[in-house]
Amino acid sequence: MERNSGQLKNAPIGVFDSGVGGLTVFREIMRQIPNERIIYFGDTARVPYGSKSQETVTRFSEQIVRFLKTFQVKTIVVACNTASAYALEALEEDCDVPILGVVKPGAKAAAEVTKNGRIGVIATEATIGSQIYTQYIKELNRNVTIYGKACPLFVPLVEEGLLQDPVTDEIARRYLAELIDLEIDTLILGCTHYPLIRSTLGRIMGEKVALVNPAYETALELKGMLADKGLLNQTPPALGSDQYRFFVSDKAEKFVRFANSIIKYGILSAKTVNIEEY
Amino acid sequence: MERNSGQLKNAPIGVFDSGVGGLTVFREIMRQIPNERIIYFGDTARVPYGSKSQETVTRFSEQIVRFLKTFQVKTIVVACNTASAYALEALEEDCDVPILGVVKPGAKAAAEVTKNGRIGVIATEATIGSQIYTQYIKELNRNVTIYGKACPLFVPLVEEGLLQDPVTDEIARRYLAELIDLEIDTLILGCTHYPLIRSTLGRIMGEKVALVNPAYETALELKGMLADKGLLNQTPPALGSDQYRFFVSDKAEKFVRFANSIIKYGILSAKTVNIEEY
Repeated sequence: MERNSGQLKNAPIGVFDSGVGGLTVFREIMRQIPNERIIYFGDTARVPYGSKSQETVTRFSEQIVRFLKTFQVKTIVVACNTASAYALEALEEDCDVPILGVVKPGAKAAAEVTKNGRIGVIATEATIGSQIYTQYIKELNRNVTIYGKACPLFVPLVEEGLLQDPVTDEIARRYLAELIDLEIDTLILGCTHYPLIRSTLGRIMGEKVALVNPAYETALELKGMLADKGLLNQTPPALGSDQYRFFVSDKAEKFVRFANSIIKYGILSAKTVNIEEY
Repeated sequence: MERNSGQLKNAPIGVFDSGVGGLTVFREIMRQIPNERIIYFGDTARVPYGSKSQETVTRFSEQIVRFLKTFQVKTIVVACNTASAYALEALEEDCDVPILGVVKPGAKAAAEVTKNGRIGVIATEATIGSQIYTQYIKELNRNVTIYGKACPLFVPLVEEGLLQDPVTDEIARRYLAELIDLEIDTLILGCTHYPLIRSTLGRIMGEKVALVNPAYETALELKGMLADKGLLNQTPPALGSDQYRFFVSDKAEKFVRFANSIIKYGILSAKTVNIEEY
């Protein structure tokens, strides 16, 4: 069914992640385009994605896209680096609304920011293994070198709430040591959980290293894309309408608790759906 | 279809876990009843279970039991504390072969071992929240007190290979501090990953605290149960037949690597299956 431009402007944006990490992207979208309605889905029954295979992550992501499309979303943001790395191409093939991942905007910002041409990427095992950041950055600037480092313990440490903790410091020091030795001047936080330990990472890397947050860059890109297509919502949603709706595949209460600890917006509830049925 | 007793004796045992942790149970079964054939399934696409809900863990476990039954197994071992805590009852209702969890055997051993009646249980958030160890131990001995402590970082630390590491020491010291203060004399390793950091846990708890490994107790119980029913395999499987077969829902190579690091039995391969189809 064709929709007219007014209907499309009012349509929500779909945002998904393997769990809670994508809320850092949601938060940036809230801030940068506050008139938009958002449907957020966190795949908490099957989290994490970062240690799983391309085939599995793609199958999971396709189910979620089918779920989000039941809300007639005007665009979908893949707010998960692993899913962006592994599944974006397959999702684009199958989808009639624009799909935006977090990797390209992060890569673009890093390519612009670096001065010495030495860029570090920290991310999940899957994202690093895919070499996707390297590939995108090289397309923009052949004269840079990209060093990837998988940091599998950061996600559990963040989810345990150890955002400021000597253990997180010690693990971060181990993961980052080789990037410091390689004298990078730019570090991409290539997993949506990592902005939550940004101060620890910044302290260890030192003031001279610029931290790139793909969540921020993605919201900026999304805003530009919607503006170009004339799809930005010009007026805030009516009072009392659900501007933000949250869905998860497991444990709604736990999700709501975590969400409220990182977003300043009283999230009252999330709904559990059986995502394997989509 | 009815099977005669010879066919049943030769039938394999099904063993499943959310991932690799159940291999500590598999290892004990291999040692204690070396003539048995085993089909192992690790749900590596949806691991971990320990932070998920009863409903989700039960749905996943039911799919796996349906998968294992395609091999005409003579019995099924739920080699995962979380699945045993959450799903065992539902699985028993639906299953025509005996099903054994790891919780009851562990609880029984702890109730027998304690002298001062103060027992600690360390496990996942889900297992502790279910209070299942407390319930089983109280059925055996009303005069004991059970103290549960969720240790969510142990699984990622083990999977990262930090079995002997200052960070694992520090995290273990934090988790165990209150159990030491409570003067327990028995500690149940209530998650199948924990026997892999047994030496760290033993050092921190001190010599006077007995560590109960439910994996060992479960293999013992399984042996007794099969003997009682006349189902123990008396002769080793024919040379060249597959005594042990491994299936996973994701990333077979990674599973094989980890499996070989903890089991002294050259595991050559594992097969990936789409478990959501069962």
